[in-house]
Amino acid sequence: MKHFTFFLGAAGAMVSFVAFTAPAPGHADEGSAPFVTDIPDGYRDWQWISSTHEAGNLNSLGALLGNDVAMKAFRERKLPFPNGTILAALHYRYVPSDENNKIFGKVQSFVPGSPTNIQFMVKDSTKYAATGGWGFATFQDGKPANPASMKSCFPCHEKAKATDLVFTRYTP
Amino acid sequence: MKHFTFFLGAAGAMVSFVAFTAPAPGHADEGSAPFVTDIPDGYRDWQWISSTHEAGNLNSLGALLGNDVAMKAFRERKLPFPNGTILAALHYRYVPSDENNKIFGKVQSFVPGSPTNIQFMVKDSTKYAATGGWGFATFQDGKPANPASMKSCFPCHEKAKATDLVFTRYTP
Repeated sequence: MKHFTFFLGAAGAMVSFVAFTAPAPGHADEGSAPFVTDIPDGYRDWQWISSTHEAGNLNSLGALLGNDVAMKAFRERKLPFPNGTILAALHYRYVPSDENNKIFGKVQSFVPGSPTNIQFMVKDSTKYAATGGWGFATFQDGKPANPASMKSCFPCHEKAKATDLVFTRYTP
Repeated sequence: MKHFTFFLGAAGAMVSFVAFTAPAPGHADEGSAPFVTDIPDGYRDWQWISSTHEAGNLNSLGALLGNDVAMKAFRERKLPFPNGTILAALHYRYVPSDENNKIFGKVQSFVPGSPTNIQFMVKDSTKYAATGGWGFATFQDGKPANPASMKSCFPCHEKAKATDLVFTRYTP
């Protein structure tokens, strides 16, 4: 059975956009590099790193959460991120809040609508050596997304080399 | 010394907008109702409830975080919120991410910029009986905001009586 590499951007919907619209040729050996196959336990209880709105086709509003290893690294500005770091990007449709806007009298308040996907970056410099030490994954309705849509994630994240392939900044 | 009531909306920037642009007459006894005077300890480590973008004049992007009592109540859909619930609304300027957008080749990615304020709602049905059981507060640069700007918070939150004065929904 062929192993696919799940090169999906976990640092923000931005990367998904790149994947959807301009699949770049994979730089890594996509036949051998492992991908993240299981949704990390307890990610919804992790601390908040930042919120992001992606306009345009993605039309997304979400949050980046991090496990304890991730939060410590962000707060200590520690780079590269240590093994054990896991980042979870929770994405939702960007929708107006009808109940809030009724009070405003205009369309002003935008909130997360239905979930679109959850993306992860898992740091393990040995296991994921072929992809910069990061394992990438995206899950839709609890299932890993189509590998074909994910090949551009690592090449795109490589552009953030100065911050160890992580695009999102910690919001104090 | 006169005590002011800090009627500032803690459930989202929406409420601030109402306060800034259309101060409503206070419904409660503003001379006697207490307000929240101290920033709750450790709020930045609390779990994520949801993200919100407020367009228009507010131009805000942020997150609502909750302490353990709050998270349990949200997840169990428990209303009214029990005493001890604290909600923290962290607000920032809604700004484009130049480094992300350079990769997109267009202005698509929006992130939290400089902080604007932090707002809290603290549930104590005795202490804050005059304001629906909630103590309201806003802090800018660590200091409580001008009381004059905060008088419309409780009257506005009263419109969310069906959800115990809390506008923000839990994002799963």
